Amino acid sequence: MQKRLGRQTVALEKPAVILAHAAVGGKQEGEGPLAGYFDYLCEDSFFGEETWEKAESTMQKIALSRTLEKGGFSPGQLDYVLAGDLLNQCIGTSFGLRDFNIPFYGLYGACSTMGESLALGSLLIAGGFAQRLAAMTSSHFCTAERQYRMPVPYGNQRTPTAQWTATASGCVILGDEGTGPRITAVTCGKIVDKGISDVNNMGAAMAPAAYDTLAAHFQATGTGPEDYDLVLTGDLGVLGHQIVTEFFQQDGVDMSKNYQDCGMLLYDIQKQDMHAGASGCGCAASVLCGYLLRQMEANHLKKILFAPTGALLSPTSSFQGESIPSICHALTIEK
Amino acid sequence: MQKRLGRQTVALEKPAVILAHAAVGGKQEGEGPLAGYFDYLCEDSFFGEETWEKAESTMQKIALSRTLEKGGFSPGQLDYVLAGDLLNQCIGTSFGLRDFNIPFYGLYGACSTMGESLALGSLLIAGGFAQRLAAMTSSHFCTAERQYRMPVPYGNQRTPTAQWTATASGCVILGDEGTGPRITAVTCGKIVDKGISDVNNMGAAMAPAAYDTLAAHFQATGTGPEDYDLVLTGDLGVLGHQIVTEFFQQDGVDMSKNYQDCGMLLYDIQKQDMHAGASGCGCAASVLCGYLLRQMEANHLKKILFAPTGALLSPTSSFQGESIPSICHALTIEK
Repeated sequence: MQKRLGRQTVALEKPAVILAHAAVGGKQEGEGPLAGYFDYLCEDSFFGEETWEKAESTMQKIALSRTLEKGGFSPGQLDYVLAGDLLNQCIGTSFGLRDFNIPFYGLYGACSTMGESLALGSLLIAGGFAQRLAAMTSSHFCTAERQYRMPVPYGNQRTPTAQWTATASGCVILGDEGTGPRITAVTCGKIVDKGISDVNNMGAAMAPAAYDTLAAHFQATGTGPEDYDLVLTGDLGVLGHQIVTEFFQQDGVDMSKNYQDCGMLLYDIQKQDMHAGASGCGCAASVLCGYLLRQMEANHLKKILFAPTGALLSPTSSFQGESIPSICHALTIEK
Repeated sequence: MQKRLGRQTVALEKPAVILAHAAVGGKQEGEGPLAGYFDYLCEDSFFGEETWEKAESTMQKIALSRTLEKGGFSPGQLDYVLAGDLLNQCIGTSFGLRDFNIPFYGLYGACSTMGESLALGSLLIAGGFAQRLAAMTSSHFCTAERQYRMPVPYGNQRTPTAQWTATASGCVILGDEGTGPRITAVTCGKIVDKGISDVNNMGAAMAPAAYDTLAAHFQATGTGPEDYDLVLTGDLGVLGHQIVTEFFQQDGVDMSKNYQDCGMLLYDIQKQDMHAGASGCGCAASVLCGYLLRQMEANHLKKILFAPTGALLSPTSSFQGESIPSICHALTIEK
C-alpha cells in the first residue's frame, strides 16, 4: 500500500493534498520582496498584544484562522493540528492553538518544523488516520533574540554570518482529496552534528544536515536537482546555501541552476541589512505558504523539493560548550 | 483499512507490537517501590557527566541502548525514533540521540511525551510507514528544577501540592509484528485550559485534560474503566488523581476500582517526602517501561489504558500571567 523507499523516505501512493494555506508576517517581512504574497502583515511587532510571546501566539491564531477561512473550513473539520515553534516549551503554539479545540500533536524540530509537521501530517493522511489536518509553525524576531541571544533593546551587534529570525507564521491544511498541490514523497532527516559551535553561524551548522537529507531523498526517489523546478532549503542563508552547493559539487551534482534557500528569498538582504539572510521556523513556513504555493497555483512551479532545516541547540547547550546538532526534513510537492 | 472512531481515536486493525522496553532512573527512583523494575539505576544524578543537562542526554542514550540490546536490535534496524523532553529546545533528546544515526521526529508534549511518541509511532507502524521504531522520553529533577523553578542548591521550599520531577527515562521499541503487548487504540488529546495558574499545582492544571481525553477514549471505543485491568494517568499526583476521579463520579462513572496515576506509584510518597507525588516525562515513561510492561509480560495485567498528561506552560508564560494549558494522549495496550 505504502511505498517505502529505504529507511528514511516514503513515496505516498495516496498523496496528501494542500487544500488551503496562509502566511502571516511582521514589519520587515512587509518590506521585503515577498510582501505581496502574505495574507496578513502587521506593522506592529506586538500584533496588538502586550508581550512579544503573546504576539507570537496571536500570529499562529491568525495564520490558522486565515487558512481555515480561505479553505472554507471550521476548526471542527480538522482532525488534527501538528505544530511547534522555537520558544521554550513551544508556548507560541500551545497558547496560540488552545482555543481551537482541535486534537493536537506538538512537535519540536526548531526551524525544520514546517517540514516535520507536513511530513507527519502527510503520513497521517496517507495512512487513513485523518481526513483533514493543519500543519503549522511560527517564529518572532524579538522572542527569539531575547531567548537565544540578547533582549532587542540591548542593541547587540550582529556578526556578518548572523541571520535575522523572521517574524512570521505559515499554515497549511492537508486533505485526503482535492485539486491542490500534492505532497508525494517525504524524507525524515537524521540528527547531523559536524562539530560547528558558532551560534552566530547557523547556516554552516545546519548545511551538513540539509546535504544529508537532500542526498538521501535524491537517492531514494531516483531523482536529482534537475527533476525539480526548484529545490529549497529553509533558512541556511547565504553561507549555508553555498556550503550545500559545494558539498553536492564534490559529488558531481550541480545544484547551481535551481537551488534556492528561503532565507535568501524573504528579505532584500542588502537593502534590509539582513547579513546572511532570514532564519526561524516562520521563514520557510511563510515563504512556502505565501510565495511558493501561490507560484505553484499559478503554474509557475510544478514540482518542488522543500527541505527546511533546524538547529537543535539551546543557549544552555552552547554555554556548556556543545556543538550544534541539526536536522532537515524534505518533501516533494507537485501539481 | 484503519478504523477511525470519530475525530480523536483510531482503532488499530494492525496493532503496533511492543518488541522491547527499558527504564532508567536515578537515586530517588532506586529508593522507591518500583526500583526492582528498572533496567539501570544510577546513584549519581550526574550519570558520569559534568552537568545535569548532559546527564539527561546520557540517560536517553542508556535507555535507547538498553532497549536495543534487550530486543537484540542494532540502531540501523530502527526506521525512526520519536522523542522529546522537558528541557528548553528538547536538548536532552537531541544530544542524547545524535550519535545513533536514526531518522528522527522531535516531539514536544511536556510530560505527555511518552503517550505522544507511542501514539504517533503506533500510527506510523499501522500505516505501513515503518517496520520498527523507538518511542522515548526523559526528565531530570535537577534540570527541571533549575529551568522551571529554582536551582537545586538554592534549597527552595516546596508547597504541599508540589510534585517531584522524576530523574528517569523510558524507551519502547515498536514493531509491525511480534508477540509482545500490542497498542490497539490511540486517542489524541486536545489542549485544555481551565484557567489554573498555580505552577506548584500541576495536578489540578492537568486533570481536566486527562478527564477530557479519557472520556473521549471511553466514548469512541465504547469502553469504560471496568474494561481495563488498570487505567493510568501519567503524573497527576495525589491531587490530580482525585480531581479526575471526582469528574468521572459526576458523570456516574466509577474510577475508584482500577484507576491509578504513575506519579503515585513511582515513589513511596510519605517515606520519601514527595508531597503530591512524582511528575516529569520520565515518570510515566519509566513506570510504563519498567513496572507496567513487566506486569503485562507476567500476565498480571492484560489490558491497560495508559494516558500521560502534559502541562504546556513555560516560566515565561507564567511570569506573563498566563494559565496552564494541558494535554493528555491515551493508548490501549493489551496482550
